[in-house]
Amino acid sequence: MTEKNPYRIYLSEGQIPTAYYNLRADMPVKPGRMLLPNGVPAEVAHISPVFAEELCRQELDDETRYVPIPEGVREMYKVYRPSPLCRAYNLEKALGTPAKIYYKFEGNNTSGSHKLNSALAQAYYAAEQGLSTITTETGAGQWGTALSEAAAHYGLDCDVFMVRASYEQKPFRRSVMETFGAQVTPSPSDQTQVGRKMLENPANFTGSLGTAISEAVERALHVPENRGRYQLGSVLNQVLLHQSIIGLECEAAFEQLGEYPDVVVGCAGGGSNLGGLIAPFMRDKLTGVKPNTRFVAVEPASCPSLTRGRFAYDYPDTGKTAPLCKMYTLGNGFIPSPDHAGGLRFHGMAPIISQLRHDGYLEAIAVKQTDVFAAAEKFAKLETILPAPESAHAILGAILEAERCAETGEEKVILFGLTGTGYFDMTAYEAYNEGVMTDHVPTDEELEAGFATIPAVPGIQAEGSLPL
Amino acid sequence: MTEKNPYRIYLSEGQIPTAYYNLRADMPVKPGRMLLPNGVPAEVAHISPVFAEELCRQELDDETRYVPIPEGVREMYKVYRPSPLCRAYNLEKALGTPAKIYYKFEGNNTSGSHKLNSALAQAYYAAEQGLSTITTETGAGQWGTALSEAAAHYGLDCDVFMVRASYEQKPFRRSVMETFGAQVTPSPSDQTQVGRKMLENPANFTGSLGTAISEAVERALHVPENRGRYQLGSVLNQVLLHQSIIGLECEAAFEQLGEYPDVVVGCAGGGSNLGGLIAPFMRDKLTGVKPNTRFVAVEPASCPSLTRGRFAYDYPDTGKTAPLCKMYTLGNGFIPSPDHAGGLRFHGMAPIISQLRHDGYLEAIAVKQTDVFAAAEKFAKLETILPAPESAHAILGAILEAERCAETGEEKVILFGLTGTGYFDMTAYEAYNEGVMTDHVPTDEELEAGFATIPAVPGIQAEGSLPL
Repeated sequence: MTEKNPYRIYLSEGQIPTAYYNLRADMPVKPGRMLLPNGVPAEVAHISPVFAEELCRQELDDETRYVPIPEGVREMYKVYRPSPLCRAYNLEKALGTPAKIYYKFEGNNTSGSHKLNSALAQAYYAAEQGLSTITTETGAGQWGTALSEAAAHYGLDCDVFMVRASYEQKPFRRSVMETFGAQVTPSPSDQTQVGRKMLENPANFTGSLGTAISEAVERALHVPENRGRYQLGSVLNQVLLHQSIIGLECEAAFEQLGEYPDVVVGCAGGGSNLGGLIAPFMRDKLTGVKPNTRFVAVEPASCPSLTRGRFAYDYPDTGKTAPLCKMYTLGNGFIPSPDHAGGLRFHGMAPIISQLRHDGYLEAIAVKQTDVFAAAEKFAKLETILPAPESAHAILGAILEAERCAETGEEKVILFGLTGTGYFDMTAYEAYNEGVMTDHVPTDEELEAGFATIPAVPGIQAEGSLPL
Repeated sequence: MTEKNPYRIYLSEGQIPTAYYNLRADMPVKPGRMLLPNGVPAEVAHISPVFAEELCRQELDDETRYVPIPEGVREMYKVYRPSPLCRAYNLEKALGTPAKIYYKFEGNNTSGSHKLNSALAQAYYAAEQGLSTITTETGAGQWGTALSEAAAHYGLDCDVFMVRASYEQKPFRRSVMETFGAQVTPSPSDQTQVGRKMLENPANFTGSLGTAISEAVERALHVPENRGRYQLGSVLNQVLLHQSIIGLECEAAFEQLGEYPDVVVGCAGGGSNLGGLIAPFMRDKLTGVKPNTRFVAVEPASCPSLTRGRFAYDYPDTGKTAPLCKMYTLGNGFIPSPDHAGGLRFHGMAPIISQLRHDGYLEAIAVKQTDVFAAAEKFAKLETILPAPESAHAILGAILEAERCAETGEEKVILFGLTGTGYFDMTAYEAYNEGVMTDHVPTDEELEAGFATIPAVPGIQAEGSLPL
């Protein structure tokens, strides 16, 4: 059925993976263990008040190589997966490159991105545990939408704390979540202790992901009868585990094509798509099967955790209520400058990605957002998909690789992750089209101010009451 | 490769049809011939100042059964087609119906709808003819987006007149078109004679499709060196011809499944999706191969051309500058009430659909928009696709059929067209969610006022200068 040089390769439903792949099992140095605020390494019992129990197990399991995908999740995957692996013929031609450019397109569902892959798994495990409510935060809105969608499917209540700046700039994102029955609250809110505290300083009014996470965690802990849990769309090991379905499907499609990528390019915010996309190919590199594959993380120059951050234990949230992760971080107090429009605004990076970067298995580049939007528009005109700004970082990374091939004549196979669509990001596209988009790159002084918020010694915790 | 009971059936690229199917060739009574305002039946030479030449030929050709799809168009189809034929298992289960519900999903491209199928063909023929500019109108914005996308691909300038009410309510739609390089003008504008005349009466300020069509036609006729042409996204025979690709792909997928639809349900605005979806199945009915297949057009009760309109020659535009079509019409002066939010707001209906309806081959029902949005939300929660309000009319029609099967126990195969996604329609979803959506159904008096604008005798033309 697969033609010789198809534009898009769809696997059949029978080829949807039956197990997630846990990259940690093959990492020579495991990612740093999650720590409680008091410095104690996290155990399932410690963190299960916050996360659904099975997800706690997945979070802490560095050994199990393959984790079966529950049938109840796989059935929902069939509604929108396998996602297509596409060949960007038009882009190749426009670039005059001998490289083959493939992209895995994850935007074919209402959430508009790959986030649904983990949302379905997380909501499923919460429902199986008999919980009533899941809470989360959302910035750009892709994760909040995905979790709302998943919650609607498995019959859970869903409380989303949405960074107020986005809540007001993207009313339609909020409407989608409400259409799926979620309750959406602008953060900081007066409904949590953390939120009220943040609101004391008017400078915090527009909110941040870090604050919204703290609010969502606090809310989860106050759901009656202990039936609420918090869920996170990126960063965590469990999320990268679920997202491995992206890479596994790519692997199967490449096998069908008789190809193998020389370079794998992904955008890097919290690391969920990147970690999932690279999983099986990084496995092959780590195990010596394909030692020469290159991996490139593309991050915004305005939020450069991998290229300019510190590798340290830090909190994923501003309220310092969640367990600490070992990661490249700009400091939990870091907030990208107001002109930053392209997503990927988390101050840290998934521990798995961070460790791989630290150990030299992964390259990272930082790019300016005006270049990102130029790449996005070029791609949209050539390939009929309007990319999310996040995804456009990977497009730009792939273009840079392909342009090098045009110079050297190398016929490389480039794979990049097209994580989603940009239908709710038109304000940013408008700014770009009107020529008013700017490119603030943090100064060393600004970075130092962020680094100052990284706890010097995990376990010496200045803040007040902690749920953990 | 096709599993036994798959959720989604993707054809391979080799199965993309190589020819459009012209349903007119098999119609026992041909649709009424397009007339010039002076009553003379249109010939290619008459209308080629307005439409690209090859499109004029297609418009008037009632005989050729299959029209080859140019390679330059087929190559672009491969970027986003074949579109999937999906089985709505979750919806079936929720309805408790023994019916099998299939839907053809056309929303997997940036234009967000099936409109791109005809936009690519029309832009291609314009480029082949050496034209520089294509002009069009857009209401909800799907067609304008599709044509902008197509124009960008084939290197044409694209001028879009956007109904002012939409222009202001849907700034993001406009941004998408601008991202593809189109020039978007709110209609009525002061840039055309028709527009200036409309603006004399402040009541016309918010605009209408009929006015925007007139402006776009006028603009096309004023492009220097006769290198501009007007293109229309629905109603015309040529558009239904291009959209036959939808039905032809459905036919091939059903063949692969060993199924055949008992009922085909489509939303009906101008008739482009409906005409394309039903084409090969209607052929089988007309030729006696499958005489019992039922066809159901679902239209908004607030704009009920098929269920309450008159079958007559009427102008497609308020400015009465375009050739007349024989169709079910509410009168070129009819404008849906301001609370109408679900698209499908054209006053007429494609001549092909109108003739089939007139001759008893097609049923039609009119539904209230609050019921449409209820169906849309149900579908979104179950099937992970947020439908365009237009498409949701077909969803509701399919649900009504499936519910009847639940009562009778009939195991019917239902096919409906899911024409697109609703990402730019969240204002309407919000109104529904907040319970402020109303259901105005035009009174007989309101309809009579519209009917009064249908020309009594085509050819006796009260208006001033006409380009044709």
